[in-house]
Amino acid sequence: MARKKTILVLNGPNLNLLGRRQPEIYGRLTLDEIGREVRALAKELRVNVEIRQSNSEGELVTWIQEASQNYNAIVINPAAYTHTSLAMRDAITAADIPTVEIHISNIYNRDEFRHHSYIAGVAVGQITGFGLQSYLLGLRAAVAQL
Amino acid sequence: MARKKTILVLNGPNLNLLGRRQPEIYGRLTLDEIGREVRALAKELRVNVEIRQSNSEGELVTWIQEASQNYNAIVINPAAYTHTSLAMRDAITAADIPTVEIHISNIYNRDEFRHHSYIAGVAVGQITGFGLQSYLLGLRAAVAQL
Amino acid sequence: MARKKTILVLNGPNLNLLGRRQPEIYGRLTLDEIGREVRALAKELRVNVEIRQSNSEGELVTWIQEASQNYNAIVINPAAYTHTSLAMRDAITAADIPTVEIHISNIYNRDEFRHHSYIAGVAVGQITGFGLQSYLLGLRAAVAQL
Amino acid sequence: MARKKTILVLNGPNLNLLGRRQPEIYGRLTLDEIGREVRALAKELRVNVEIRQSNSEGELVTWIQEASQNYNAIVINPAAYTHTSLAMRDAITAADIPTVEIHISNIYNRDEFRHHSYIAGVAVGQITGFGLQSYLLGLRAAVAQL
Amino acid sequence: MARKKTILVLNGPNLNLLGRRQPEIYGRLTLDEIGREVRALAKELRVNVEIRQSNSEGELVTWIQEASQNYNAIVINPAAYTHTSLAMRDAITAADIPTVEIHISNIYNRDEFRHHSYIAGVAVGQITGFGLQSYLLGLRAAVAQL
Amino acid sequence: MARKKTILVLNGPNLNLLGRRQPEIYGRLTLDEIGREVRALAKELRVNVEIRQSNSEGELVTWIQEASQNYNAIVINPAAYTHTSLAMRDAITAADIPTVEIHISNIYNRDEFRHHSYIAGVAVGQITGFGLQSYLLGLRAAVAQL
Amino acid sequence: MARKKTILVLNGPNLNLLGRRQPEIYGRLTLDEIGREVRALAKELRVNVEIRQSNSEGELVTWIQEASQNYNAIVINPAAYTHTSLAMRDAITAADIPTVEIHISNIYNRDEFRHHSYIAGVAVGQITGFGLQSYLLGLRAAVAQL
Amino acid sequence: MARKKTILVLNGPNLNLLGRRQPEIYGRLTLDEIGREVRALAKELRVNVEIRQSNSEGELVTWIQEASQNYNAIVINPAAYTHTSLAMRDAITAADIPTVEIHISNIYNRDEFRHHSYIAGVAVGQITGFGLQSYLLGLRAAVAQL
Amino acid sequence: MARKKTILVLNGPNLNLLGRRQPEIYGRLTLDEIGREVRALAKELRVNVEIRQSNSEGELVTWIQEASQNYNAIVINPAAYTHTSLAMRDAITAADIPTVEIHISNIYNRDEFRHHSYIAGVAVGQITGFGLQSYLLGLRAAVAQL
Amino acid sequence: MARKKTILVLNGPNLNLLGRRQPEIYGRLTLDEIGREVRALAKELRVNVEIRQSNSEGELVTWIQEASQNYNAIVINPAAYTHTSLAMRDAITAADIPTVEIHISNIYNRDEFRHHSYIAGVAVGQITGFGLQSYLLGLRAAVAQL
Amino acid sequence: MARKKTILVLNGPNLNLLGRRQPEIYGRLTLDEIGREVRALAKELRVNVEIRQSNSEGELVTWIQEASQNYNAIVINPAAYTHTSLAMRDAITAADIPTVEIHISNIYNRDEFRHHSYIAGVAVGQITGFGLQSYLLGLRAAVAQL
Amino acid sequence: MARKKTILVLNGPNLNLLGRRQPEIYGRLTLDEIGREVRALAKELRVNVEIRQSNSEGELVTWIQEASQNYNAIVINPAAYTHTSLAMRDAITAADIPTVEIHISNIYNRDEFRHHSYIAGVAVGQITGFGLQSYLLGLRAAVAQL
Repeated sequence: MARKKTILVLNGPNLNLLGRRQPEIYGRLTLDEIGREVRALAKELRVNVEIRQSNSEGELVTWIQEASQNYNAIVINPAAYTHTSLAMRDAITAADIPTVEIHISNIYNRDEFRHHSYIAGVAVGQITGFGLQSYLLGLRAAVAQL
Repeated sequence: MARKKTILVLNGPNLNLLGRRQPEIYGRLTLDEIGREVRALAKELRVNVEIRQSNSEGELVTWIQEASQNYNAIVINPAAYTHTSLAMRDAITAADIPTVEIHISNIYNRDEFRHHSYIAGVAVGQITGFGLQSYLLGLRAAVAQL
Repeated sequence: MARKKTILVLNGPNLNLLGRRQPEIYGRLTLDEIGREVRALAKELRVNVEIRQSNSEGELVTWIQEASQNYNAIVINPAAYTHTSLAMRDAITAADIPTVEIHISNIYNRDEFRHHSYIAGVAVGQITGFGLQSYLLGLRAAVAQL
Repeated sequence: MARKKTILVLNGPNLNLLGRRQPEIYGRLTLDEIGREVRALAKELRVNVEIRQSNSEGELVTWIQEASQNYNAIVINPAAYTHTSLAMRDAITAADIPTVEIHISNIYNRDEFRHHSYIAGVAVGQITGFGLQSYLLGLRAAVAQL
Repeated sequence: MARKKTILVLNGPNLNLLGRRQPEIYGRLTLDEIGREVRALAKELRVNVEIRQSNSEGELVTWIQEASQNYNAIVINPAAYTHTSLAMRDAITAADIPTVEIHISNIYNRDEFRHHSYIAGVAVGQITGFGLQSYLLGLRAAVAQL
Repeated sequence: MARKKTILVLNGPNLNLLGRRQPEIYGRLTLDEIGREVRALAKELRVNVEIRQSNSEGELVTWIQEASQNYNAIVINPAAYTHTSLAMRDAITAADIPTVEIHISNIYNRDEFRHHSYIAGVAVGQITGFGLQSYLLGLRAAVAQL
Repeated sequence: MARKKTILVLNGPNLNLLGRRQPEIYGRLTLDEIGREVRALAKELRVNVEIRQSNSEGELVTWIQEASQNYNAIVINPAAYTHTSLAMRDAITAADIPTVEIHISNIYNRDEFRHHSYIAGVAVGQITGFGLQSYLLGLRAAVAQL
Repeated sequence: MARKKTILVLNGPNLNLLGRRQPEIYGRLTLDEIGREVRALAKELRVNVEIRQSNSEGELVTWIQEASQNYNAIVINPAAYTHTSLAMRDAITAADIPTVEIHISNIYNRDEFRHHSYIAGVAVGQITGFGLQSYLLGLRAAVAQL
Repeated sequence: MARKKTILVLNGPNLNLLGRRQPEIYGRLTLDEIGREVRALAKELRVNVEIRQSNSEGELVTWIQEASQNYNAIVINPAAYTHTSLAMRDAITAADIPTVEIHISNIYNRDEFRHHSYIAGVAVGQITGFGLQSYLLGLRAAVAQL
Repeated sequence: MARKKTILVLNGPNLNLLGRRQPEIYGRLTLDEIGREVRALAKELRVNVEIRQSNSEGELVTWIQEASQNYNAIVINPAAYTHTSLAMRDAITAADIPTVEIHISNIYNRDEFRHHSYIAGVAVGQITGFGLQSYLLGLRAAVAQL
Repeated sequence: MARKKTILVLNGPNLNLLGRRQPEIYGRLTLDEIGREVRALAKELRVNVEIRQSNSEGELVTWIQEASQNYNAIVINPAAYTHTSLAMRDAITAADIPTVEIHISNIYNRDEFRHHSYIAGVAVGQITGFGLQSYLLGLRAAVAQL
Repeated sequence: MARKKTILVLNGPNLNLLGRRQPEIYGRLTLDEIGREVRALAKELRVNVEIRQSNSEGELVTWIQEASQNYNAIVINPAAYTHTSLAMRDAITAADIPTVEIHISNIYNRDEFRHHSYIAGVAVGQITGFGLQSYLLGLRAAVAQL
């Protein structure tokens, strides 16, 4: 692991569609554009970031498992798996690095079934509702944990 | 995309076992045999169909995401993921083509936990309980949406 | 009973207002116009249909009871009684002919109390959300049961 | 009102089908045959009985209302309305004569939604599960209240 | 429709028994006596009223449907159907005239199952607990809507 | 086993106090006086009865187990164990003779936690609310099963 | 206490903002303007009124307590405390003067958590959904109680 | 209002005890020390902040109401009132400036009754679990909204 | 703080009305009379007591916060706030002196919503149902903790 | 019955293990040692006490039944039967002497299923959480009832 | 205690009927025959076993209490008490020897009320569904704990 | 299929981390070390075993589907998918070979959401809580089914 701290930014299912779909909820930035902003802030905060996206619950579980060897913290937008994935919860519990949960939209004024998060109970904390800012605040929160 | 309309028929987990398992619930036709009937009706209705099956939630999410570029409508039998997959629900919401949800068996006279569908709220409509006919009626419903 | 198969199409409370009220939910066709389309399809499928509507639960129960003597199948849009009438459920159970439940609107993206159907558990299957098409698909489903 | 006590025996929706439908649950006797047995016992107990059936909740409510003027007690098999009719509950509360609730089948080993009775809380008592005997025991119970 | 505004006052099941039954809850006035007071106030407010009562859910649904053609507003005491009738709710939604829901007794300090009203969500408002005054206040509220 | 049929009448906890406690709910007859009436009716119906009472769940379970060897039917007033004893339910299931459940008071207009019976689902039927008559009707119901 | 009857009109939290906020829900009248209308009607009905508003639950409790010494009735719009304040409920129970609960908006077609009122069970009755009219009808209802 | 933007930072009940009580949950910083850090960041972000604390729900409601006239945004740590105060929710809805909800501890791995927030549904977003950082991130989030 | 131990006796909303209201539930003693008995016992037990009452949740929270500096224990009758105040719960948790919860009436045979106490889980223990004795026993319990 | 009042102190299942098991919850005193303290206080209060323990629900029911003949009050620590025994509840209701329910530990900060007591609703009151003091306070409470 | 380890095998209510009742669920072996197999395996594993059965909850509690003095582990089939006995749960918690819970049938595909075990949370583990094998695997599991 | 019976041992998500993570819950053995013990026992029991692990729900579904052709039984530790995977439940139902569900930790004394298993209802039985022994007992249980 490099001297500079490295943070893994994980994105769950359907986030590869950001910017093209339902911009009234998820905003107009693509995941790539968000990534550029995240990297710019990371540079300012003197950390490295790696950003990944997957639609597969199993792949996300595997990435979380591997994170503790190569990364210092996780910032995760679990998207729809927030509400259904015990496997990701268990993986985060198993990982011994701090995890920050973020959401682009405010999950608490959407459907009832989006109010509950299996991730929140095992994350350091949760940031929800600030669009692109959720990623930037999440990165700051993760860096503050190191 | 061809001039003729094309409809993507998706099949969720365990449907590759159709015809060989629990025929008293799911009937005696294999997925291939159902496919043949679906293709015959498609010909009659002058549309193309493509039929796929996967046991992987992530793969189904990806297929749904890609559908809006190459297909005019989706007919989906989400099988067990009907009741647990918010990721598929979100993918269908993101897709801007009509989606018809079908089930071979009547999910409302089976186990309590099979009564709720995460898909139904974002599909055009749902057809449940008619065996092979669910596929044929689903195809007709999708064509009527075009 | 005539040689040609006859199907009873029953309509529950408030469906006599179809076309004049809340067309954004129920469409612009009147029950009479729907009836014309249903009869046209029936002719094509070589069956007879009889279409009735009542606001009275008791009358609907009586019609369902009598159906097994004069009809080969029932297609029923139980409207608001879908969610409250055990008496209609018991009548359908008692009738020894196949019953297909249909809904014009998608009951699964409306009020929570419209998600549950007392009819679905005793019908062959349910078709919901396709407007006029729900009637036509329902007729096809009923014919396929004969 | 005659010197001899008279008891009104009311039957709710679908009970006109008794004997012809689902005999494994409701037995093989028709409502007429049950009526004959009930009348025979009434003679032995030196009371009059009148037996009616309706599929209409409103008609049953009206009969219950009128009962207190011409009858000394009610024996009622509310069938499916047991579980849904607050109007019948209110009518029984309003009537100032004892009411005995009966059921042919044991409602407690059938569907969960048949376990709750709106009638039981305002009846003198409930007799459930004894087939024809439920009527005869109900008549005896009503007579014992006079 | 006459120049003078006309208001339809509907009464649900068992209200024909008013004054004779459970006066400690429903007061000592009969429906006729209440009608006289309502008509007197109507005269003072320069509107016409028509007052009807039915024990039949279907008949009430039909009256509500017809109201929008001949009446300017509805005042309804749905009695026991308050808590069970989706069909009346749907009929009120379909009617394009203001509806005021009233109750003689305070439904919120009675049985738990009387706390929920299917009507309240689609009425202009609800007045509950003031005995005869509920009718008079309801008439004033309806007139204020015109 | 004697030629004459014999019926075991079991009484659960606190029924030894009958007649002395809360007569407004349970009546003024002692268990002995009820026993005399039950024996008188048994004689009329030409059966034998044996009447027992215990405050101990285990003892009642044992008596139910033994009943199938020496008795033809059980009439049981399980009192408070109605609502808490799965062990008695299992014993009744194991016994291969018909069991009739009775209650002196109407359990459905008392505390919520008295509405559910673990016994009802495995008994032939239930008789509740008729005081002493519940025993006599229960005996008749049991005899009718033989 | 003056010879003329006096009625205390209490307003709960945020009602000092009336007219300036969310007029689509609460109307365009300020609390002062409503007060003027209420006073005009009071004059017509020959009663005095005193109108107060507080954001503090404790202050409202104290006002309700004191009301029974100086006022003949209370008209209260408890606003958000409707759904959370047992202390106000207890204060109203303790007060020996009639209390009428009013709401400007129809609380039954808003958020689920606004459907329940702790006040309704101890008030004479509730008037909800008629805007300014809720105050005027509430005053009439209170006067009718005197 | 000054040219420089001003943000109101509100603190609910018991937060005046910060640093002295349960430091394992709430950290070792006092509210004053947190205030110093918040002011330092505000200076860096070129905004003004005003920080207040109250144990009184009514006082907090009043402050939120006044905020829209003198402040550009609210950062609020509602503490225990998060879970019980509809009055604060209504006040935030009425205020037309963005509100950011923050929590020092992760409310989602504490008692079940702390999981639900009445504030979250009407705030821009929520930040929970990062100790002092929750305040700093909240300030950044508020500034990003301006 | 004096050498003699001092105990703070707190009383929640509406307890200033003791003796004058609902004496069948809360007894005929006023809070002053109870205070005299409490002081007499305190003298016997050689402790000081201070007795306060407030209708304001915020004031009670503040008193609880301050208690740990000037008092050795708290005896609290939280009245209606028992069931709604998380803020008082949090304040008690923060205080590092033992707290004894008392109730005059038995909260477990009153309304369902009075069965749950937010205070009980963080108090040393609870004493409920003994009228004036609840105060005296509570004082003894508090003294025994010192 | 002796001139001196006598109080029966009953102990439910597993309390014979007191002092030897889980002293962090139940304290280090054995039931015998508690008995000695109880007897000492009884002497001071000039009453007799009898202390019994049983693991059998039936035996406890029988003791409660017999208590009303030989004792003036009951102090009962029902232990695990608190949460499951309706039979003991019924026995206490039947007994016409005051019953005080006590618990050594605070049942409200233990498992959820220990929060509900079937006994509390029929006891005079409940004392919970004060260890040995629960017995002594319970004895005082019982004596105060005589 | 002997050098050889001794394991107490406890059997709850109705297990004395094994082999004679409902063999389709519980198998055809009697408890004696199972005992023989268990003893044979015990010999092979070089431990002693003692096997007991009781229908009485209190007796089972007492046996569990005594076990910690004379036995090294408990294997318990609590039968119906699995789902209702907190007293047995508390006794197992009090015992300081490992306890293994077993069931002959698979409790998770039977009635809903058999899915929850009060014992499982305090046992080392649970073995369910393997018939006679549940006893043999349970014995192995217990021996592995020593 | 070979003459020797072969058993497929499947492991769900995160079990590849065994031994390195949360050893206080899952023990210190790696999956490889467990595999060695399982193979040793398999040899002793004269069966073959194949051991696999996957984080992907879809892959596990596919393995279960294929199992019925090449294996005689399945031993499965479904880990987090236990509580969420209907797809695995359906696959096991479709497979016509016995399946034994195992868990390393006792899922019944962990989080509430881990108490329910979708697998248990379709497995032969479940073994939970015995660490490595759960695998060995599971293998024995599977062999006993052959």
